[in-house]
Amino acid sequence: MSPAAVTLDDLPIRDDLRGRSPYGAPQIDVPVRLNTNENPYPPSPALVADLAEAVGVNAAELNRYPDRDATELRAGLAAYLGHGLTTEQVWAANGSNEVLQQILQAFGGHGRTAIGFEPSYSMHPIITTGTSTEWIGAAREDDFSLAPGKAVAAIEEHRPDIVFLASPNNPTGTAQPLSTIEAVLAAAPGVVVVDEAYAEFAREGTPSALTLLPRHPRLIVTRTMSKAFAMAGTRLGYLAAHPAVVQALLLVRLPYHLSTLTQTAALVALRHRDELLGTVDALRRERDATVAWLRGKGLDVADSDANFVLFGRFPDRRKVWEGLLAHGVLIREVGPPEWLRVSIGTGEEMAAFRAAMEEVL
Amino acid sequence: MSPAAVTLDDLPIRDDLRGRSPYGAPQIDVPVRLNTNENPYPPSPALVADLAEAVGVNAAELNRYPDRDATELRAGLAAYLGHGLTTEQVWAANGSNEVLQQILQAFGGHGRTAIGFEPSYSMHPIITTGTSTEWIGAAREDDFSLAPGKAVAAIEEHRPDIVFLASPNNPTGTAQPLSTIEAVLAAAPGVVVVDEAYAEFAREGTPSALTLLPRHPRLIVTRTMSKAFAMAGTRLGYLAAHPAVVQALLLVRLPYHLSTLTQTAALVALRHRDELLGTVDALRRERDATVAWLRGKGLDVADSDANFVLFGRFPDRRKVWEGLLAHGVLIREVGPPEWLRVSIGTGEEMAAFRAAMEEVL
Repeated sequence: MSPAAVTLDDLPIRDDLRGRSPYGAPQIDVPVRLNTNENPYPPSPALVADLAEAVGVNAAELNRYPDRDATELRAGLAAYLGHGLTTEQVWAANGSNEVLQQILQAFGGHGRTAIGFEPSYSMHPIITTGTSTEWIGAAREDDFSLAPGKAVAAIEEHRPDIVFLASPNNPTGTAQPLSTIEAVLAAAPGVVVVDEAYAEFAREGTPSALTLLPRHPRLIVTRTMSKAFAMAGTRLGYLAAHPAVVQALLLVRLPYHLSTLTQTAALVALRHRDELLGTVDALRRERDATVAWLRGKGLDVADSDANFVLFGRFPDRRKVWEGLLAHGVLIREVGPPEWLRVSIGTGEEMAAFRAAMEEVL
Repeated sequence: MSPAAVTLDDLPIRDDLRGRSPYGAPQIDVPVRLNTNENPYPPSPALVADLAEAVGVNAAELNRYPDRDATELRAGLAAYLGHGLTTEQVWAANGSNEVLQQILQAFGGHGRTAIGFEPSYSMHPIITTGTSTEWIGAAREDDFSLAPGKAVAAIEEHRPDIVFLASPNNPTGTAQPLSTIEAVLAAAPGVVVVDEAYAEFAREGTPSALTLLPRHPRLIVTRTMSKAFAMAGTRLGYLAAHPAVVQALLLVRLPYHLSTLTQTAALVALRHRDELLGTVDALRRERDATVAWLRGKGLDVADSDANFVLFGRFPDRRKVWEGLLAHGVLIREVGPPEWLRVSIGTGEEMAAFRAAMEEVL
C-alpha cells in the first residue's frame, strides 16, 4: 500500500476508537456564540495588563521547568474555595478534563468501572473509556431529576469504582441536593466525583459539596476557571479532596503538566476574582429571564443553576438549531433528543437569541 | 475510621500504583542546576517583551476557549521542521509527555504492549503503564548501543503495538543511526515512536528520523520546545507523522487541551527561533568539552548528541552526587547503576561542575 493512500482505518488504533469522530462542538465564526457555556464577558484591560506584566516577569525564567506541584497556585485556590481547605487538599491541571482524567488514571483503569446518571456531561464517559475504564450509564428520571433511592440502587447493583455526579448538571442545568450526594457517598464503594464546574452560578441557597469534605475522604469536588471565572482560554481545572486523594493523583500526573504561564495566569485571575466573578450576578439574571421567556413561549425548560438553559421539546431539533444559526446565533445540539442548550450571553446576545427564536418558532 | 486518619494506602487506587512514589527529579534550590536538561540560557528581554505583548493581545479573549486544533501553531511547527511537512502532519500538546500519552491512548491500552530499549527515557514505561498498556523493557548492549539485529529480534519475539526509540537517547546521550530505525520500522507490526527531544543538539551529520516519514505511515517523530528552544516553562511538545496518525490522536485528545497562552507563547518562540536555537552551538561546544574533560579524568563517558552527558562508573554514585550537591552543583542520579548524568549549563556552570568534581574525585 502506498503511504499516501493510508487512511485512519488502516492504522492499528485501539478497537473501541474505530469509527469514532473527534469530540467537540463545531467552532463556527458567528456573531452570537452561545454554544460552549463560555462567559461572554472578556477580562478588563486592567486585568489583561496585569497578566501581561506577570508574564513579563515570570517568562524571564521560561527556560526552566515550572513548579511541578504548583504549590502557590494550589494555596490560592484553597483560599478562594474557603471551607478551611488547605494546599494539600487542592490539585490543579489543564482544564477539569485533565483533572478528571487523572482521577480515572488513579482510581479507574482496566477491570474497573465508573457510573454516571445520564443525561450528563458527555466528557465523563469519553474520558472514562479513554483510560480503559468501563462506563456504566444509569438513567435519570424523565424530568432529569435523580431520586436518591434510584441512584443508590444503581450503585448497589454495579458497585462502581468511581461515581460521577455533575451538580449543577450539564446539559440539564439543575443542581443536586446535598441529600442525594450524601446518599450516594454512603452507598459508593469507591470514590465519588461531584463535578461542580458551574457551582458559582447556582441559585441562592444551593450548598456546595465542599461542605461534605470533612466527613468524606473518598469525595472529590471538581471546579474550573473556564465558566464563572471567564478564563476558558487559560485551561485551569482544579479539585478539592482529602490530602490522600491528592497524593494519589501525584502518582499519575505527568511531571510538569501545568506550565509556568498557566500557573501565572490562574494566580492573576485569583487576584482579580472580584472583577471576574462580578459577572455572575448579571449572568444569573439573564439566565432566569431566559428561563421565564422560554416558558412564556410554552416551551419545556429545565430548572437552571448554571450559565446555560436546556429547553425543548422539538421533534426536529436540528431544524431549530439550523434556523438559529441562519440568524447568526450558534447554540448547542446536545443532550437528550428533542432538547437544545443555549449558553447565557450578554443582554444583547440574549436579545438576539430571543429575536431569532421568534423567527424560528 | 476517622477521616483524618485516612492515608493513601486506605484509598482504592489502581493496584499497580500501590507503593509507588511520584516521579520527578528533586527540585532543590542550589546555585548550579544541571539535573533536568534545561537550557541554561533564559529568553532575552526582547523575547520576553514580545511574549508579554502577544499575551496582552490574545488575553483580551481569554473568556473564550482556545483553538481546539491549534492550527496556526501546527502550521508554524511544520514550517520549522521543514522536510515538506504540513499542518495536517503535525500535532502539539502540553509537553512531549502528553504527546506520548495521547499516542498510547490511541494505539495502546489494555491488552496491548509497548517496547523500549533500556536504559532509556524513564517516562516511557511510566506513561505506558499509566494507560493500562503493558511495558516490555528490552536491553541495550553494555555500552548502551543498540544493534539493529538485536532490536529486530526483540520486536519479532514480542510483536509490540508500539516501539519507543529515543534518539538521541536519554540518559545515555547517543543518537541512533537511521539504519537501526529503518530496521525497526521494517520489523514492527505497530507504530514506531522516535523520541527526538534532543535532536537539535546532535553532532554534525546526524540525520533526523523526519527524513523517513514520507515512506513510513506508522512512524511518529516527537519533539519538544523544552530543550534546544529553551522553553521548558511553556510545556510544548509536538510530533510529526502521517496525517492519519494525527487524525487518530484527535480521537483521544482532551478537547481544548492546549491553552491560548501556550499556543501564543509557542508561536512567539517560533518567531524568535534564531535567538533561541542560537544557544545550541555554545551548548554543543560545552558538551564536547565536558566529554573530553571527563575522559581526561579517566572516567567512562557515553558519546553525547544531547545537552547532557552520562558518565561513570562509580561503585557508590550516590556519594558522588551528594558530594557535588555539597558544592552547590545539582546533577541527576538516574539511569544505569554506577553512572550519573550532568546537564550542560553555561560555561561558568560547567566550570563550577568541574571544580566540584575535582574536589569529589
